[in-house]
Amino acid sequence: MKRVIGFMGLGIMGVPMAANLLKAGFEVVVFNRTPGRADEVVALGARQATTPAELAAQCDVAVIMVTGPEAINALLFGEHGAAEGLKGKPCVQMSSVAPSYTRELNERLDPVGVTLIDAPVSGSKVPAENAQLIILAGGPRKVVDELDDVLLAMGKKVVWCGDAGQGSMMKMMINHLLGVMVESFAEALRVGEKGGLALDAKLDVILSGPLACGMFQLKAPMVRAQDYPVNFPLKHMTKDMKFVLDTAYELGAGVPVGMAALEQYARAVRQGYGDEDLAAVDRIFSE
Amino acid sequence: MKRVIGFMGLGIMGVPMAANLLKAGFEVVVFNRTPGRADEVVALGARQATTPAELAAQCDVAVIMVTGPEAINALLFGEHGAAEGLKGKPCVQMSSVAPSYTRELNERLDPVGVTLIDAPVSGSKVPAENAQLIILAGGPRKVVDELDDVLLAMGKKVVWCGDAGQGSMMKMMINHLLGVMVESFAEALRVGEKGGLALDAKLDVILSGPLACGMFQLKAPMVRAQDYPVNFPLKHMTKDMKFVLDTAYELGAGVPVGMAALEQYARAVRQGYGDEDLAAVDRIFSE
Amino acid sequence: MKRVIGFMGLGIMGVPMAANLLKAGFEVVVFNRTPGRADEVVALGARQATTPAELAAQCDVAVIMVTGPEAINALLFGEHGAAEGLKGKPCVQMSSVAPSYTRELNERLDPVGVTLIDAPVSGSKVPAENAQLIILAGGPRKVVDELDDVLLAMGKKVVWCGDAGQGSMMKMMINHLLGVMVESFAEALRVGEKGGLALDAKLDVILSGPLACGMFQLKAPMVRAQDYPVNFPLKHMTKDMKFVLDTAYELGAGVPVGMAALEQYARAVRQGYGDEDLAAVDRIFSE
Amino acid sequence: MKRVIGFMGLGIMGVPMAANLLKAGFEVVVFNRTPGRADEVVALGARQATTPAELAAQCDVAVIMVTGPEAINALLFGEHGAAEGLKGKPCVQMSSVAPSYTRELNERLDPVGVTLIDAPVSGSKVPAENAQLIILAGGPRKVVDELDDVLLAMGKKVVWCGDAGQGSMMKMMINHLLGVMVESFAEALRVGEKGGLALDAKLDVILSGPLACGMFQLKAPMVRAQDYPVNFPLKHMTKDMKFVLDTAYELGAGVPVGMAALEQYARAVRQGYGDEDLAAVDRIFSE
Repeated sequence: MKRVIGFMGLGIMGVPMAANLLKAGFEVVVFNRTPGRADEVVALGARQATTPAELAAQCDVAVIMVTGPEAINALLFGEHGAAEGLKGKPCVQMSSVAPSYTRELNERLDPVGVTLIDAPVSGSKVPAENAQLIILAGGPRKVVDELDDVLLAMGKKVVWCGDAGQGSMMKMMINHLLGVMVESFAEALRVGEKGGLALDAKLDVILSGPLACGMFQLKAPMVRAQDYPVNFPLKHMTKDMKFVLDTAYELGAGVPVGMAALEQYARAVRQGYGDEDLAAVDRIFSE
Repeated sequence: MKRVIGFMGLGIMGVPMAANLLKAGFEVVVFNRTPGRADEVVALGARQATTPAELAAQCDVAVIMVTGPEAINALLFGEHGAAEGLKGKPCVQMSSVAPSYTRELNERLDPVGVTLIDAPVSGSKVPAENAQLIILAGGPRKVVDELDDVLLAMGKKVVWCGDAGQGSMMKMMINHLLGVMVESFAEALRVGEKGGLALDAKLDVILSGPLACGMFQLKAPMVRAQDYPVNFPLKHMTKDMKFVLDTAYELGAGVPVGMAALEQYARAVRQGYGDEDLAAVDRIFSE
Repeated sequence: MKRVIGFMGLGIMGVPMAANLLKAGFEVVVFNRTPGRADEVVALGARQATTPAELAAQCDVAVIMVTGPEAINALLFGEHGAAEGLKGKPCVQMSSVAPSYTRELNERLDPVGVTLIDAPVSGSKVPAENAQLIILAGGPRKVVDELDDVLLAMGKKVVWCGDAGQGSMMKMMINHLLGVMVESFAEALRVGEKGGLALDAKLDVILSGPLACGMFQLKAPMVRAQDYPVNFPLKHMTKDMKFVLDTAYELGAGVPVGMAALEQYARAVRQGYGDEDLAAVDRIFSE
Repeated sequence: MKRVIGFMGLGIMGVPMAANLLKAGFEVVVFNRTPGRADEVVALGARQATTPAELAAQCDVAVIMVTGPEAINALLFGEHGAAEGLKGKPCVQMSSVAPSYTRELNERLDPVGVTLIDAPVSGSKVPAENAQLIILAGGPRKVVDELDDVLLAMGKKVVWCGDAGQGSMMKMMINHLLGVMVESFAEALRVGEKGGLALDAKLDVILSGPLACGMFQLKAPMVRAQDYPVNFPLKHMTKDMKFVLDTAYELGAGVPVGMAALEQYARAVRQGYGDEDLAAVDRIFSE
C-alpha cells in the first residue's frame, strides 16, 4: 500500500511537486500557511490539513518545501507544529538551506525520534513540473533508499550525498558552477559581439558543440530577446554565490573565478537587475 | 564528379581529417613537410605530392591544417609554394590562428586570385576521428556553401561566421568559454571535496543535470583518476586564453571572470602542468 | 586635576598604552584577567584592581583593549563586572570589533547610563609604544572632545568618525586598503624580480618616490630578509579582509581588487604562513 | 667646464626638464618637431637646432623625452637624424617605452658608437617642474655615474637598475604598484562612503597614518572635488597596466590583483573617463 505523504509549502516549486506525488498515486495531505494556495492540488485530490500537527498525525512521510529556516522552524516547532506528530517517521526537508542549519535541525529532530532527510533539488520551475528534478539527498542511506518511490515521483534521479547536511552541501557546489557558467556564457557572447559575430551564429556554435548544456539552451532565448523572465532570480543567485563562497572560505577552498563571478552578479544587482532572471547578468556587459 | 582535395598538414588533427575525406569518397592529394607522416593516409588511398606547388596543380580545393602562421606561409609562399597554383580555387585554412593574421593572409591571397576560407574547428582529437568537428567558417558565404560536402566529410556542422577572419574570432570566443568552464568545473569539485562530498556523487549530479555537457563528460574520468592524458594541452589553453583576453581588451569587452581563469591556468603552467591536459588546472586546487 | 583612568586588558597593545597614560601624568588603575601581566605597569606606578567592578568604582574613565566581544562582555557584564560602576562615566572601547557588535554594546550600555566611545586604532605594536597611534573615535562628539588629553596620551591624532560603531567602520576601511597595498607591494616586487631587477634598487625606487609610505618602510626589511617576524599576523589580516569584504557586499560596494587580494591571503594561510607577518603574502609568489 | 646638453622633445615633461638643465648652469641646445614649443626654453637661454643632426653636432650628451618609439626612431634615424652625430657620446633616452624596444634600440646604436642610457622617470608634471623626478637608469654603470650632474639637474635621485632596458623594467614595476594603489584608494573610500563615513574623516585617517604617501596626497583633492584634472591620464594608466601585466605573463609572474585593477581601469575607459586623471577610476564605484 502506498504511503500517505504530508506536503508542507505550496509555492512555485511545491504545487507541481505535490501534484506529481498525486499523479504517481500517493495519497497527499497538504498544509500551507496561506490556505488559498492549496486549491490547485485539492482539485487534483489532495486533502487539506488545518495545522502542521494535523498533517503530521495523518501522514507516513512529511515533505517540506518552503522559503527557508524561519518557515521550517515555524512548521515543525511553532504552535500546532508537526515535530511531535512525526515521531518514528521520516521528514524530507527539500528547501534550499545551509548545511549548518540542516545539521542543527537534525540535532533538534533526532531526540524527538524524527529522521531528517536533507533533500534539496537541482532544477527549478520547469523540471519541477515535469518531475525532472535531481534530488540531492543527505541522511541515513537506508531511509533514503526506502523513500525512492516518493522522491522519484517528483524527480528523475536521487543522488545520495552523505549525512544530513550533505545534500545542502551538494546544492551549494552546483550553485557555484551554475553561477560561473551563466556569467561566462554572457561574457563570451559579449566578446564575440564586440568582435562582430552574429548572435545566431554564436549560439549555434555553442549549442551544437561540447560546451552545450541544458542551462545554455534555457538561457539562449533570453539573451536573444534581451528579455529575462524570471526562472531563477538574479538576486537569489547572488545570495547563493555569496553563501557558497563564504563556505568555501571557511573550508579553505580557493575560488578566484567564483569570486570574480560574484562581483559581476553583485554589480548587476546594484544596477537594478536583481528581480530578473540570473541570465540578466548579461546586461552589465553592455556598458 | 567529386572534387580533388589537396590536404596539407598531417598532424594529430590532419591525419584523421584527411582519412575522413577519403572515406567520404573524395580523391585526396596530401603534402607534409615530414613525408613519413603521410604513410597512414597513403595506405587509405591518398596520393602524395612532393611539393605544395605539385599539390596545388592537382587539386580543386586546398585544405591546410598546420601549427600556425609560419607553417602556413611556408606552404603557400615558400619555395615551391602552393599559392600561385591555387589561382581560381578555394583555400580552406583550418589551423587555429589570429583573426588579424587571417585578414593579412586574405589580403595576400586575394590579388593572386585565391579565395581564402577561414575555417578553424571546435573539437579536438576524438571529434576529428569521428568527423564530429564543428567547422567555424569565414569567407564568402556562397563559396562556403559550395564546400559543404567537403567540410561535412570532416565535421558534423558548418557555421558561417562572416568574412575571412570571423571563423577565427568565433574560435576565440569558444576558447574563452571553454577555459572558464573547465576551470570552474575543477574549482566547484574542490569546494565539494573540502565539504566532504564523494567524487562519484558530485560527478553524478553534475553530469545528470542542466550543467552537463560533452566537455565535462570528457574531463570527468581525468579528474576521477587524477591523471590527465593530453587531449588539449594546458599550455595551449593558457596561450589561447591570453590571446582571447588580449583581443577582448582591444575590443573593449569586459572579461573579469576570464582573467581570473587565465591566472589559474598560468599558475598551473608555472607549477609544471603545462604539458598535461587542460583539465589538470584541477591540480592547483590541491594545495 | 587629571582624571583617573581604569585600564582593562594588558596585552601587546595594552601594556604600552597604559604605560603612556602613566607617562602623561594620569593616575591609572589596571585590571587584567591574568594578573601577572600587570607587573610592568604596576612597576611604573599603576594600581591593580582585583575585579572590573573595583576598577570601575575607582576610575573616571574606563579604557578597554582586549581580544574581542567575548572578553569585553565578560569585563563589563560578567561576575563583578564593570558596567554598573561606570554609570555616568565614559567607557572607551579600543579593541577591534565589528560595527554591528559596537552598536549592540551601545544599546546595552546606554540604559545603564554609560557613554560608549568606540575607539579602535590604526597602528600596531611600535606606534603603541611611541604613542603614535591614530585613534578612530565614534560616539558623541562632545565626549570625544573632552577625552582628547586621555586619547592623545596614547596616540598622535584623534579622528572623530561619527556615532558609536563608526570608529569600527573606519578601521575596516583602513584594513581594506592595508590588505591590498601590502599584497600589491609583494606582487610588484616579484614582477620586478622575474624581470631581473635587484631588490635593493626596487626598494630604493619605491621608498623614495610618491608611493613610499610608512607601511612599505616597515615591510621592506622583511621582504629583504625573506623573514617575516609578526607585527600583524597574516591570518588576522585574512580574517579582517574577509570581514570588510562581507560588509562591503552587504553595503553594496564593489570591491573586485579587495577580493583578489583576499584570495591571495587565503592561499598564504592554506600554504601555512598564517602565523607570520602579513608581509609573508610575498611567499606565495615564489612558486 | 659643464657639458652641452642636446635636448629633444619639448612636451609637458620636456619643457620643465630642459628649463631645469638651464637653471643648473648647463648649456642647452633643443630640438622639437613643432618649433614653436621651444619658445619658453629659448627665452630661458637655450639655443634651437633646426635638425636633430645639427643638435647632435653641437652637444656632448643627448637627452630624448618624447611620446614613444616612433618619435625616437624619427629623431635618431630619420632624415637629418641624430644617430651618426652622437658617435662617442651618451644618449639618454627618458621617454617611457618597453624594455624590449630599449634593447632593440641599444643593438642599433651600439654599432654606431653611441652609448644608450635608458632613463625613464618616476613622477609626472609637478616633480618635473621641481626637479624632483626619480630617474631609473639602465646602461653601463660608469656612464650613468658620469652623468650624475646632468640627471640630478632634472631629478632628486638616480637609481641604477642594470643594463639598458632595466630602467624601463623598473618603470613598469612602479606602474603596476601605482595602478593598484590608486584603484584601492578609490575602492576603500567607497566602502567607507557606503558605511556612512565622512570623506574628510576618511582622508584624514589615511593621510596621517602608515598608508599615507605622496600619491594619495596628490589625489585626495581630486576625490574631494569629484573633479580629476589630468596629471596622468587614466587611458595611459590603463595602457601601462596592460603592458606590465603582459610582461608579467611572459615572465611567469602571478599578478591577480593587478589584473583585477586593470579591469577597473578598462571599465573606466569604456565609461568615458579615459581623458581624466587616473584618479577618476573612482567614478566607476558610484554606480
